[in-house]
Amino acid sequence: MATTRPDTAFVHDIRVTWGDCDPARIAYTARLPWFALDAINAWWAEHFAPAGWFEMELDRNVGTPFVRMEMDFRSPVTPRHILKCHTWPSALGTKSVTFRVDGVQDGVTCFEGSFTCVFIVADQFKSQPAPDDIRALVEAHIPAA
Amino acid sequence: MATTRPDTAFVHDIRVTWGDCDPARIAYTARLPWFALDAINAWWAEHFAPAGWFEMELDRNVGTPFVRMEMDFRSPVTPRHILKCHTWPSALGTKSVTFRVDGVQDGVTCFEGSFTCVFIVADQFKSQPAPDDIRALVEAHIPAA
Amino acid sequence: MATTRPDTAFVHDIRVTWGDCDPARIAYTARLPWFALDAINAWWAEHFAPAGWFEMELDRNVGTPFVRMEMDFRSPVTPRHILKCHTWPSALGTKSVTFRVDGVQDGVTCFEGSFTCVFIVADQFKSQPAPDDIRALVEAHIPAA
Amino acid sequence: MATTRPDTAFVHDIRVTWGDCDPARIAYTARLPWFALDAINAWWAEHFAPAGWFEMELDRNVGTPFVRMEMDFRSPVTPRHILKCHTWPSALGTKSVTFRVDGVQDGVTCFEGSFTCVFIVADQFKSQPAPDDIRALVEAHIPAA
Repeated sequence: MATTRPDTAFVHDIRVTWGDCDPARIAYTARLPWFALDAINAWWAEHFAPAGWFEMELDRNVGTPFVRMEMDFRSPVTPRHILKCHTWPSALGTKSVTFRVDGVQDGVTCFEGSFTCVFIVADQFKSQPAPDDIRALVEAHIPAA
Repeated sequence: MATTRPDTAFVHDIRVTWGDCDPARIAYTARLPWFALDAINAWWAEHFAPAGWFEMELDRNVGTPFVRMEMDFRSPVTPRHILKCHTWPSALGTKSVTFRVDGVQDGVTCFEGSFTCVFIVADQFKSQPAPDDIRALVEAHIPAA
Repeated sequence: MATTRPDTAFVHDIRVTWGDCDPARIAYTARLPWFALDAINAWWAEHFAPAGWFEMELDRNVGTPFVRMEMDFRSPVTPRHILKCHTWPSALGTKSVTFRVDGVQDGVTCFEGSFTCVFIVADQFKSQPAPDDIRALVEAHIPAA
Repeated sequence: MATTRPDTAFVHDIRVTWGDCDPARIAYTARLPWFALDAINAWWAEHFAPAGWFEMELDRNVGTPFVRMEMDFRSPVTPRHILKCHTWPSALGTKSVTFRVDGVQDGVTCFEGSFTCVFIVADQFKSQPAPDDIRALVEAHIPAA
């Protein structure tokens, strides 16, 4: 993945449960991108709009649909430990932002993911450049090279 | 549950998968109401609007939010057999309709459920009586006593 | 529902997100029993086994499959507020326990649910009476009549 | 993505529903990898073991955990049309297999994904080379270069 996890990255805690696990007794693979998106939503909630994407779309008319995701799965996720999702923006383009999410349990990195979304005028589903306040916010959180 | 499954009830087939199962190697309990709602949506798709609730809400401005559900779980659901969801309206009030969904695998009834929804004007989230065409449709499918 | 929510009931907080909501912009009905089960799992995690059902099944060989659920949906759930799930055992039989879960947002009761499970020897999927330590624990948390 | 969709690829149909959609009235992003995994499970069910991963793990002791996924999201998925998931193996290594899944609605490619899994002895969670029968099966379905 493109960037190294900064010590200052926002951490979103997820309590993995019985219902997240499959018969192999580990979290089902399709739950892991769901967890990562929960973490990105929590990043927005923490830094920009308390109700996250819901508030951004409905109150601010800014949508951020995803155009790409990639994930490497390194170690199983289980309910034994909190899943700490380290979440930070790693790149900002004119019309897109990329988030990294590293899922860590008990000190072990379980997955690393990279998720790119674009900005749209929500009620028109039409592309737009990153709004200025969002641009400033994201830039302030991208780790120095 | 209030009514007996009629032989003529609509049947919605669900392929239960690995990801629906929990570490006990049976479908996770919280998946079962989800399956039942999929079956009710499929009932509407078959009898009223091909894209189901999505079409009813967006194109016809009729919403049908649920006000109550009850389910009895009788036997585990697994990926070994198709889950056949027998689905029929069991009661119609002025402003509500109740659906029954029986989930059957390999001839064994796994769950029985009853789900009551009301009618609303979708874009106002405001209660309304059952629209006439829906009333006629539902009445035609309620089993004779 | 059979019992009134005690002031002392355990409260499990859920952050409802964009992805939990349907096009009506409220949490999808089938997510609500899922939330309620998360709350019951959290009750066990808080009072009995820190990793909840996962630990009960795998480490203690006690399973608690559900045999019945009923829910009344009173008000929509949205991402605007934390969903506070008030969770308590309301009845204990020889072989079963019933939990109540009330979901509350911003002081408004959104749903009330009642969920009955039985006790099994997990690796045999065979019915058993409530183990003594669980019986004592549950009895201590059932509200006085 | 590495390979071009062959005309002969297996197609798994998914009925997208109201409950799969978010307030933007399109399928929630985190549902899309879930759909793709359903399609890969259906590929195994069609070609190898009728109950898919569940049967492979429990009856044949072969697990296929994912080590990587990447997806490009090209067009929104909605309940208006069946989601046709074109699914085929695109590469086979000594210990891994890569599947491609293209999701198509009404002739429009909505997403393209690539998913790599490894082979394990399921009850030991231990790496193994692809079993011979699986190797032969996968090789027979990889498109000619």
